[in-house]
Amino acid sequence: MSDATLVFQPEGKRARGAVGSTILEAAKSVGIDIESPCGNRGTCGKCRAVVREGRQCLSEPSALEARALTVQDRESGYRLACITAIMRTGTIVVEVPNESRLARQRLLVAGIQPPVELCPALTKLFISMTRPTLTDVRSDSQRLLDALAAQHNVRADLAYEAVKELAEAVRQQDWKVTLTVYKEREVTWVEPGDATTSAYGFAVDIGTTKVAGYLLDLNKGAVVATSSMMNPQIPYGDDVITRISFTSKEPRNLWTLHRLIVEGINKLVREACRSAGIDPRHVHEMVTVGNTAMHHIFLNISPKYVAMAPYPDCLGSAIDVRASELGVEINPGAYVHSLPSVVGFVGADAIADIIATEIYKAKEPSLLIDVGTNAEIVLGSEDGLLACSAPSGPAWEGMQIRHGMRASTGAIEKLWIDHESLEPSYKTVDDARPTGICGSGIVDAVAEMLKAGIIDRRGAVVNGLRTGRIRRLEGVSEYVLARTNETGTGKDIVITQKDIREIQLAKAAIYTGAYVLMKRQGVTPSKIGKFYLAGAFGNYIDLQSARVIGLYPDVSLDRVRFVGNAAGAGARMALLSTRIRDLARELASKVEYVQLAAYPGFREEFIKATLLPHEDLSRFEDVRGLVTGD
Amino acid sequence: MSDATLVFQPEGKRARGAVGSTILEAAKSVGIDIESPCGNRGTCGKCRAVVREGRQCLSEPSALEARALTVQDRESGYRLACITAIMRTGTIVVEVPNESRLARQRLLVAGIQPPVELCPALTKLFISMTRPTLTDVRSDSQRLLDALAAQHNVRADLAYEAVKELAEAVRQQDWKVTLTVYKEREVTWVEPGDATTSAYGFAVDIGTTKVAGYLLDLNKGAVVATSSMMNPQIPYGDDVITRISFTSKEPRNLWTLHRLIVEGINKLVREACRSAGIDPRHVHEMVTVGNTAMHHIFLNISPKYVAMAPYPDCLGSAIDVRASELGVEINPGAYVHSLPSVVGFVGADAIADIIATEIYKAKEPSLLIDVGTNAEIVLGSEDGLLACSAPSGPAWEGMQIRHGMRASTGAIEKLWIDHESLEPSYKTVDDARPTGICGSGIVDAVAEMLKAGIIDRRGAVVNGLRTGRIRRLEGVSEYVLARTNETGTGKDIVITQKDIREIQLAKAAIYTGAYVLMKRQGVTPSKIGKFYLAGAFGNYIDLQSARVIGLYPDVSLDRVRFVGNAAGAGARMALLSTRIRDLARELASKVEYVQLAAYPGFREEFIKATLLPHEDLSRFEDVRGLVTGD
Repeated sequence: MSDATLVFQPEGKRARGAVGSTILEAAKSVGIDIESPCGNRGTCGKCRAVVREGRQCLSEPSALEARALTVQDRESGYRLACITAIMRTGTIVVEVPNESRLARQRLLVAGIQPPVELCPALTKLFISMTRPTLTDVRSDSQRLLDALAAQHNVRADLAYEAVKELAEAVRQQDWKVTLTVYKEREVTWVEPGDATTSAYGFAVDIGTTKVAGYLLDLNKGAVVATSSMMNPQIPYGDDVITRISFTSKEPRNLWTLHRLIVEGINKLVREACRSAGIDPRHVHEMVTVGNTAMHHIFLNISPKYVAMAPYPDCLGSAIDVRASELGVEINPGAYVHSLPSVVGFVGADAIADIIATEIYKAKEPSLLIDVGTNAEIVLGSEDGLLACSAPSGPAWEGMQIRHGMRASTGAIEKLWIDHESLEPSYKTVDDARPTGICGSGIVDAVAEMLKAGIIDRRGAVVNGLRTGRIRRLEGVSEYVLARTNETGTGKDIVITQKDIREIQLAKAAIYTGAYVLMKRQGVTPSKIGKFYLAGAFGNYIDLQSARVIGLYPDVSLDRVRFVGNAAGAGARMALLSTRIRDLARELASKVEYVQLAAYPGFREEFIKATLLPHEDLSRFEDVRGLVTGD
Repeated sequence: MSDATLVFQPEGKRARGAVGSTILEAAKSVGIDIESPCGNRGTCGKCRAVVREGRQCLSEPSALEARALTVQDRESGYRLACITAIMRTGTIVVEVPNESRLARQRLLVAGIQPPVELCPALTKLFISMTRPTLTDVRSDSQRLLDALAAQHNVRADLAYEAVKELAEAVRQQDWKVTLTVYKEREVTWVEPGDATTSAYGFAVDIGTTKVAGYLLDLNKGAVVATSSMMNPQIPYGDDVITRISFTSKEPRNLWTLHRLIVEGINKLVREACRSAGIDPRHVHEMVTVGNTAMHHIFLNISPKYVAMAPYPDCLGSAIDVRASELGVEINPGAYVHSLPSVVGFVGADAIADIIATEIYKAKEPSLLIDVGTNAEIVLGSEDGLLACSAPSGPAWEGMQIRHGMRASTGAIEKLWIDHESLEPSYKTVDDARPTGICGSGIVDAVAEMLKAGIIDRRGAVVNGLRTGRIRRLEGVSEYVLARTNETGTGKDIVITQKDIREIQLAKAAIYTGAYVLMKRQGVTPSKIGKFYLAGAFGNYIDLQSARVIGLYPDVSLDRVRFVGNAAGAGARMALLSTRIRDLARELASKVEYVQLAAYPGFREEFIKATLLPHEDLSRFEDVRGLVTGD
């Protein structure tokens, strides 16, 4: 036996850990999900765990840990779970603090959806067959196809999955069956009796962070249930690049992430079907959208080269794959249809955004920003569309922020700072004691600190202010949002100088992306007819704060439309109509992709955009008066 | 622990057997294959095993065993392994005699094959692609399809299995790849560099008893290796009906037999590829033929209703199923093409027979009999074809014959009886000591006994003959072919009255089938231009003996053509040419099926045909002089 016993507190769950494996691996083995956005490289410092007993069984603290943990933390027994290895047998007691856990989060599944004329890929047709006799011994399959042709004038092939069910299905209700006919060319399922009213489909938006599912009645075109979850791949990296590099390390890693998302989607299907009282076997098609990397991984296709210049994707076009081939547990004959992508990082989710917002038929220039770990940005109208992808990073999801967290219970989501006293006040999700700060809170914090003069337009914390809220720890300035006695973690919650830098980089990425597109088209902010803000974060953001920090070009607030999960809406529309799929294919080849890195002057623009709201204040006339520091 | 320990002799293999399970199941669990042609019903008496120790741990001998085993056998410890259950824990020592084992057998893989113009379903095409650049960021898949269209004028889709390989394959040899293009419409595989010369296919004939595989070079149209095996489903029943009823008992049984044959075929592929030095991933297509039940089970489709009047098959048409979906281990993108069937019991093997013998273009009436557990019989010419299926049973394979065995080492395959002394002489396979008698030996035995006057034309053993070779045991007459001191089993080898009855029924089935077809067409034996005798048994049979017992209509011997495994030849031809597949489809709809049971006067004809050679000697003028008994 070369295993140690690990006891995880406060649950008291016990795990076995082989010598050479890590605390994080042992925790995972018993279902305790510890954050590790950096992909187990020991660099993000998110997977902190306190070793209560058995330190002697573990590897010595490394230089990486010295960098990520304070002296005080290290003395209290904090380790990084992802790189702390078990060295010998014994009992190790580990406490996993709340802030290191992947918590349940408020997820956005709602969103706009323009009306769609019903035209699904499948129809369910009822047929009545004659019985075989000694003088008519046609095979069951031929008999069925003949009846389909005679009664519905449809000439189709029989899918193998349907053939397997055939013999029993036709005999169960006296040779009366319902056929699921896909695109009028293939019978994908056979079931006894008249089941024409049970035609469902499932649309999925596979986000880097969130996965949202929608169960639709294909006869009525209505959503009958929704379900959502955190992307179960998160323990392997918070952002797309970390996950891609994980899949590239060794071949089975792609399979690991592929299975995680497939299992996750299966869970969404089960949940939605349970709440609607529907058998998952009546889900006859699935449509998925997602960024290119998420799509590739879902399809078990290596996304490796998507992350390498010039970033070509492997599969650009739409594809139909049999659900059973992917391990997706809906009707065995069903297909999974994945929407096409524009190119590399501008994926099927961007196409779905365009479809849902209908900016392809706008009369005046429209801007769309889908804020996420990768921000998709589209500019255009009926005259043409430009798109780019801005790798803004996961700061909006609370990642790479000292006390960042997702918008779950206890997250500071709104924040104000008194300009005189420099004292903050805040609102948390569910009004719980604060345990961290989520994306909208961070945007507020930076905007408020700027307006209160705590930071200057370069993002630097101003020295010599008369307040106990600002302090320097190990050479880094930080502003205390909430003190130990008021928090739910028993520790101060702060915004550090480094956090502010993260936000500056993240917002500069998005702003510059939008700016480059507008520049290319010769469109100024005042010309933008509608500005669609999509994505969960976009929906909760304070628009004024976002404008103060310069997250997006200075478009008048009355032009803004919050569209929620527009990618999910686009997926639903494609599920309901093959005409929308034709449109998606058309858009995928028509939308012009702008490679930001290749744009002349991009770096300079980006650097100018890291200022708050921007180096060039003339671009932010509306907020000029609010930002005094310089 | 409620398991007993079983020790199987002479190997000394140890197995655990749960209380309630049988000796046969325990034997199977350690790879000892015991025959059980009756499907574990305790009726065939083939699974005899000697319990050496631990009788008290086993169930009491049942009435079935009293019927199948002699008093002497029972006293020696013989039990039927399939119905003897473990009742309590302990150690049980069981000896499995040679005659109860599934032995390796001489298998026929050769056969005729008319020349075929090469026109395979797939072609391998080499393409050279340009690299992606910042100004040409098409997806890998689009780039590949564009190059295919430009360089070969082929517009195809990409199979999902190919997409998965794509990214690595194109980069391995500088964007030069070989595509496997199926029917000019689908790219099923992508591999680096120029691999156009490595295009192989595999043809399989799935017989009830034997499975034969052929590895073909699709560029040259040549067989490069063959392999064969006993059908691994045999332990679940010797004949089609027993296996069908096994699959109908509970749902997982179909899966069990399906997996057995798929695993068996995978083994054939590995063996053939190893001997030819070829990577199984270069096998890009498989074509299968077999009777309807074998085909259904291979495809994991229930054959239940094939065995129930009016015997419709579930799938009649040809079908392409992705190899990976069936678990067939060849190229992951490859298809398995199954040829169509005529109807119910007249399966794809009959179609393959017709293709290989080319009787569909014969000028004069031709007769084809593929002798097997189910005999396929076809009569016709270019003017039309009739077909029927005769359930002759597995007596030809040595089943249901007291000392019957397959044509493996020690089987008596030729036999003569001196008309004066009534003493036999024989030849065995490999000239080993006799251990039983195979199909051709049984036909000889019956013919010789008839000619020597040991049996009369009704098949009854004649009383009062002066020879020590004939004796009565427990009321049943038997003729001793070989005595204890000369055999390899240490026991007499006999032909019993019951064995003769089996042969009478089996040959009557085939004769009547052929007779009915000829009657329908108004064709007499003298009009038959060519008489094709197919199947392994057919190839080793003594034609004169077969005629003496009346196995087939009295066609002149010079018209007979031995065609060996014609079904396998037809499968090879279909693998080499899609035109042959078109022909198969055409034949499947054109061949007229004759339902023997529905033919007026069938029963009477059948009864008359049980006589040797026939009640009506005028139908066997050529042998009239040889058969004196009456």
